[in-house]
Amino acid sequence: MRTDRRWLVGVDVGGTNVVVALVPFEGGPPAKLLKRRTRADQGAAIVVARIASMIREVMLVADGEAVQGVGIGVPGPVTPKSGSVQAAPNLGWRDLPLATMIGDEIGLPVTLENDANCAAYGEWWLGAGQGAECLVAITLGTGVGGGVIIGGDLYRGASGGAGELGHTVVDFSGRECACGSRGCVEAYASGPSIAKRAAKGVKAGQKTVLTGLVNGIPGRISAEAVCEVAQNGDRWAGQLLNEAGRALGVAVANLINVLNPDVIVIGGGVAAAGDLLFEPVRAEVQARVFPEAWRACEIVPAELPGTAGAIGAAGLFKRTTNGRI
Amino acid sequence: MRTDRRWLVGVDVGGTNVVVALVPFEGGPPAKLLKRRTRADQGAAIVVARIASMIREVMLVADGEAVQGVGIGVPGPVTPKSGSVQAAPNLGWRDLPLATMIGDEIGLPVTLENDANCAAYGEWWLGAGQGAECLVAITLGTGVGGGVIIGGDLYRGASGGAGELGHTVVDFSGRECACGSRGCVEAYASGPSIAKRAAKGVKAGQKTVLTGLVNGIPGRISAEAVCEVAQNGDRWAGQLLNEAGRALGVAVANLINVLNPDVIVIGGGVAAAGDLLFEPVRAEVQARVFPEAWRACEIVPAELPGTAGAIGAAGLFKRTTNGRI
Repeated sequence: MRTDRRWLVGVDVGGTNVVVALVPFEGGPPAKLLKRRTRADQGAAIVVARIASMIREVMLVADGEAVQGVGIGVPGPVTPKSGSVQAAPNLGWRDLPLATMIGDEIGLPVTLENDANCAAYGEWWLGAGQGAECLVAITLGTGVGGGVIIGGDLYRGASGGAGELGHTVVDFSGRECACGSRGCVEAYASGPSIAKRAAKGVKAGQKTVLTGLVNGIPGRISAEAVCEVAQNGDRWAGQLLNEAGRALGVAVANLINVLNPDVIVIGGGVAAAGDLLFEPVRAEVQARVFPEAWRACEIVPAELPGTAGAIGAAGLFKRTTNGRI
Repeated sequence: MRTDRRWLVGVDVGGTNVVVALVPFEGGPPAKLLKRRTRADQGAAIVVARIASMIREVMLVADGEAVQGVGIGVPGPVTPKSGSVQAAPNLGWRDLPLATMIGDEIGLPVTLENDANCAAYGEWWLGAGQGAECLVAITLGTGVGGGVIIGGDLYRGASGGAGELGHTVVDFSGRECACGSRGCVEAYASGPSIAKRAAKGVKAGQKTVLTGLVNGIPGRISAEAVCEVAQNGDRWAGQLLNEAGRALGVAVANLINVLNPDVIVIGGGVAAAGDLLFEPVRAEVQARVFPEAWRACEIVPAELPGTAGAIGAAGLFKRTTNGRI
């Protein structure tokens, strides 16, 4: 039976996993979702072949119905026009013409975008910020990424560098950041920064169940573990999340004082801490922005954890090639 | 002789002065510029009458050629739709239907906007940022105001609160700000914050020519005096401006990491310090943003000091009523 249904493929290439989704052209939950290890250590050619085979596999579910094309998100700056990855340090990629490489394998048009931008667009299209006039998405992972959607469009800025929210500064003489600057919110609210803080405390003899969990090796503490024990009532772990949430709240307040958005979506691993993180974020924001702007802005958890990137990459393919979403 | 020339009137109502400009409809330098004391202490009715008479006076220069309407900027939040001033603390105004009041007096259509937004639009239309895709304007005065222009339009945000750049935070545990928050850039780079810093230093016996200028009354030091003696070689005054410039640079870096604009225009009294301010701003920005975003962004002094507000108010009248600029 022939149908008029059409499909999109979205790909989110992460440092750890590749997620590939088959998404209805008109929007809606993925009909098929694949997640496999990236294994970037095997080199770009092998990773590209793996991505291509995952794309073919999800396309089987379309069962001959039209697949319009593929949108890809990668962790690093891209040149959307040429479809090249400028740099993806976690993958060891530099100047990789990824859109062309995948297009040659699959025989479909391919668009490329930064992964945090894809996640923001995914949450705007089908997630926590549907219909927002201005949405800012913040992803708390290994780094702190961000994306800005204004008037239904991804806002890229003059050189594609808009939404680098992790490197907005909350304390100009504060903690050193991997970027070379100081006091970036990433140094307070990323997974590794929380884990580092926890390890330091455990070493210093803080009273926390984390100590028992890591067999005396504080370096083994993950941000996930901090979130988990905090949710189970570990007070010191809760304080660590409060500290991270307050710093993040200052960065969010700054965003609001610049953009006055109607929705801010916070996702990524650390966001799993829930209210332990969101409460200090909201408290700090409310203390630092004007009441009208506070009332105008919802600060909400991401609704598409793990899939916003792939779904948003598919959506951005549609927006770019179709002219509208 | 009849002509097809058309005109706009722009009004900038400041805490100290009212500036009224007669601006060619197609853009260009004002054909007539008036500046008079606001005298807000006399009450809103008298100030409104004064503004109306200034408008009539500049319209005489149009000599019968069509004046399309009046754009007004005021120091505080406005409701553009109704043409009401929500609050203008420096004028003692609250919920004042200013557009209607002026319209009734003059018999022309009137639009209303916040003054920092007007200044940003003025610099974009006819000043230092003509043709910019994304321009951010920062005005260093009694407060630190801001405006954001994206794609040729004033960006207002969800509740008209976009561009509150003075209250973006650069040090979350830093100086107290009049807004009740802490570490806002306004507490470092506004005129009064620099003057306060100078007074403190003079009291503490710093070696500076400022001491002799104020007859032993440090409270008399103005930011203008700090700029002047710094430019004449006073090293300690130069250090004060360096400190203000560094804090401002952090706020500018944050703006760039959010919006990746192509032009940032810095104006207002303190901007008269020139390189003594702009050099630390640029140094701090360069150290804190990615190279592509740094290269993509010009950081320039305002080109319409004292008139950007009135010119921008006229431009926003045109943009709003004419559909394009």
